[in-house]
Amino acid sequence: MEIFFSGSIRGGRSDVDIYAALIDLLERHGEVLTEHVEAEETAQGLSDADIHEQDVAWLRQADVVVAEVTTPSLGVGYELGRAVQWEKPVLCLYRPDGDHDLSAMIRGNDAVTVEEYRDPATLEPVLASFVDEHR
Amino acid sequence: MEIFFSGSIRGGRSDVDIYAALIDLLERHGEVLTEHVEAEETAQGLSDADIHEQDVAWLRQADVVVAEVTTPSLGVGYELGRAVQWEKPVLCLYRPDGDHDLSAMIRGNDAVTVEEYRDPATLEPVLASFVDEHR
Repeated sequence: MEIFFSGSIRGGRSDVDIYAALIDLLERHGEVLTEHVEAEETAQGLSDADIHEQDVAWLRQADVVVAEVTTPSLGVGYELGRAVQWEKPVLCLYRPDGDHDLSAMIRGNDAVTVEEYRDPATLEPVLASFVDEHR
Repeated sequence: MEIFFSGSIRGGRSDVDIYAALIDLLERHGEVLTEHVEAEETAQGLSDADIHEQDVAWLRQADVVVAEVTTPSLGVGYELGRAVQWEKPVLCLYRPDGDHDLSAMIRGNDAVTVEEYRDPATLEPVLASFVDEHR
């Protein structure tokens, strides 16, 4: 089971600890493909074209896609657009206490499952069930 | 010539005047399809599912796509991901003085043209040439 994880990088890094916690949870269920979204220093030495190419290849290859969508991010949105077109199963995780309402492109999208949460620890059964459903 | 214009809505509305100026410029070159991204009050009475369906239909139908990408936005990113997969010509307009570096998914993307600017008025020849190239 290969799981693509998507979180904001240049859109804002305030949720980096949450991304790390989510990746830890996801690693119990499969191999997590992600552009070092949990690291403070990302993609050292890679050009933007390399990052794009690698991310899109991982996304194409993944069995399922999980995105944390609380911090608005062009890159996360782009990956979700491509994942939907490839008909990948997509789970979006959203904390409603943030500064931004969730985009209608995600909230109004039949091809995307949205799960609201406050504490990543409570997501374990949600992630387990999402992954198992598509195994 | 049908032009899809994309700008941030729930990701942040600080650039709304710039979106309006860009839409004015684009209207000289064709019909601009956009989810009232230039209006203070957007999409009154539409559900998120209606907004998603209408936006994706307009995007599918458009000859070219122009996005203002300075304010990070999931919805803009999502639309760009779908536009790239449909092989639409895509022009992204970016003001480098903002708070966020441009995503590698856009900056490193061969399928997207990025134009940096400071004042929308200076974009007239860029928009004219982009539209004419794909007419």
